[in-house]
Amino acid sequence: MRLGIGDDAALFVPRSGYETILTCDWFLEGTHFLRDRHPTDSVGWKCLARAASDIAAMGGTPRCFLLSLAIPNELTGRWLTDFLVGLREASRKLKCPIAGGDTTRQNRVLINVTVVGEVRRGHALVRSGAKPGDIIYVSGRLGEADLGLSALRSNHGKIRLSEPRLEKHLYPEPRIALGQWLADRQLATAAMDLSDGLSTDLPRLCAASKVGAIINESKLESATVEHNSVPKWNKRLALALNGGDDYELLFTVARSKVRKIPSTHRGLKLTAIGKVSRDSGVKIMRADGQSSPIKSGGWDPFRTN
Amino acid sequence: MRLGIGDDAALFVPRSGYETILTCDWFLEGTHFLRDRHPTDSVGWKCLARAASDIAAMGGTPRCFLLSLAIPNELTGRWLTDFLVGLREASRKLKCPIAGGDTTRQNRVLINVTVVGEVRRGHALVRSGAKPGDIIYVSGRLGEADLGLSALRSNHGKIRLSEPRLEKHLYPEPRIALGQWLADRQLATAAMDLSDGLSTDLPRLCAASKVGAIINESKLESATVEHNSVPKWNKRLALALNGGDDYELLFTVARSKVRKIPSTHRGLKLTAIGKVSRDSGVKIMRADGQSSPIKSGGWDPFRTN
Repeated sequence: MRLGIGDDAALFVPRSGYETILTCDWFLEGTHFLRDRHPTDSVGWKCLARAASDIAAMGGTPRCFLLSLAIPNELTGRWLTDFLVGLREASRKLKCPIAGGDTTRQNRVLINVTVVGEVRRGHALVRSGAKPGDIIYVSGRLGEADLGLSALRSNHGKIRLSEPRLEKHLYPEPRIALGQWLADRQLATAAMDLSDGLSTDLPRLCAASKVGAIINESKLESATVEHNSVPKWNKRLALALNGGDDYELLFTVARSKVRKIPSTHRGLKLTAIGKVSRDSGVKIMRADGQSSPIKSGGWDPFRTN
Repeated sequence: MRLGIGDDAALFVPRSGYETILTCDWFLEGTHFLRDRHPTDSVGWKCLARAASDIAAMGGTPRCFLLSLAIPNELTGRWLTDFLVGLREASRKLKCPIAGGDTTRQNRVLINVTVVGEVRRGHALVRSGAKPGDIIYVSGRLGEADLGLSALRSNHGKIRLSEPRLEKHLYPEPRIALGQWLADRQLATAAMDLSDGLSTDLPRLCAASKVGAIINESKLESATVEHNSVPKWNKRLALALNGGDDYELLFTVARSKVRKIPSTHRGLKLTAIGKVSRDSGVKIMRADGQSSPIKSGGWDPFRTN
């Protein structure tokens, strides 16, 4: 950063041979977090982490971010301090310093984060390159974040915030290293991050690539939250398909490159869950060989529940 | 733009030899505009124009923008269409295409705009370079936007929105060409845009440059809204000092370069209104030679009125 906070705008020197990646994300009280339930430092962490997840989805490296913050007057003390603790933690972890922003007063907390990243020219991961026959992968375990949210919601503040099952909901880690690795080695034909749930996001990737997909239920099971937390498979399957906020990567790999995809990358599980089909539509195939269309059940702010 | 709306993030190829400028701005219903008073297309125009004004203040060229929009369900029809008409107008006028964004639902209209610009490496106009003895300039006529806002507020919807005195409040034009010209020719030692009023913004420039300023009242008068709209000088002076939203440029020029500053640039009036002083503090000098400190009276969202 050549010039940060304090001038009219921030100045940033782009790396030669790289493209600039731009993304912005709302994080609004009542919609994306609950002020009385979510620890304040997790609000700071998550608003940056989830915006940076879009940089990971492009295979990029975060370079800096802008913070737009609107808060009530009475939150300028302790709340703001705690918020900045979490934000600074995420900023350090992601090596993504603040470059500027805009603050104002409102009766509710409004946050908007713009993250600027970089990716080697021509190496960006996009949604539109999946081809029929490609294998579909996800990182991590789907549904974990949604399970954490349910725990937070149902326990009326009696839950310990240090519980491991809340970790992924409160402090998600964008898959920067995985995205970079896929982009550097040009291993993925398409990629995106899972923010709204597989049943909503996979059809988006398919639409962008003008293809369909068949998910293998038993393979999806091994990329889903573990048994001990939710005993019934039906419920776990719903979590894996519809749970939002996981910020795992969904990516497709040409058959010829599948042998280059290990079962874990830096400790993060990678699972082949299905394949890209020529027909449009996204289906799930059960163990008995029967398949049925997946109904989009993820997060959509304009759907009336 | 290599990749726009529809993927996880936008991709932008930076020009070699240029720095990237980043800025973001809130534009919130009830705070920055009134939904029942401001024509919807002006909301679209202004949210982009005012963010682009920070690019002008750095001497840069806008390249693209990100739009974060949160609106109530019932505004997704006509309101959104009109909003986009104004936004598209500004986007065309500023040669600044949309590159991406984020939309969600809220019970009030929330807008955040990030503008990305470029400036030749080392040529950016910053706030911190003013030196004692430099001459202080402003572009245009100060207080015009505030006068328009008052008219809009006081006339209870009876005012014709095509009235010229509303023009600058509703459809401000960021001073891109002036900023570029000052940056290209390295004519200004410091610059910023006037968004919160001269009495608030000039002290900011002085603080960044560690200098003071003396404004000449009679010179300021000639850079102020004209006689026929507001007859009393006292009231016009208050408008020039405290009126916000003008988006004119405030800049300082070394004495040796003053002869290179014309009285107009592409039809836009440029007025020398005072000079930079060694002492800290911002003063105004009257025709009788007496001077008094300027009290900051511009816009501050955290001040309780």
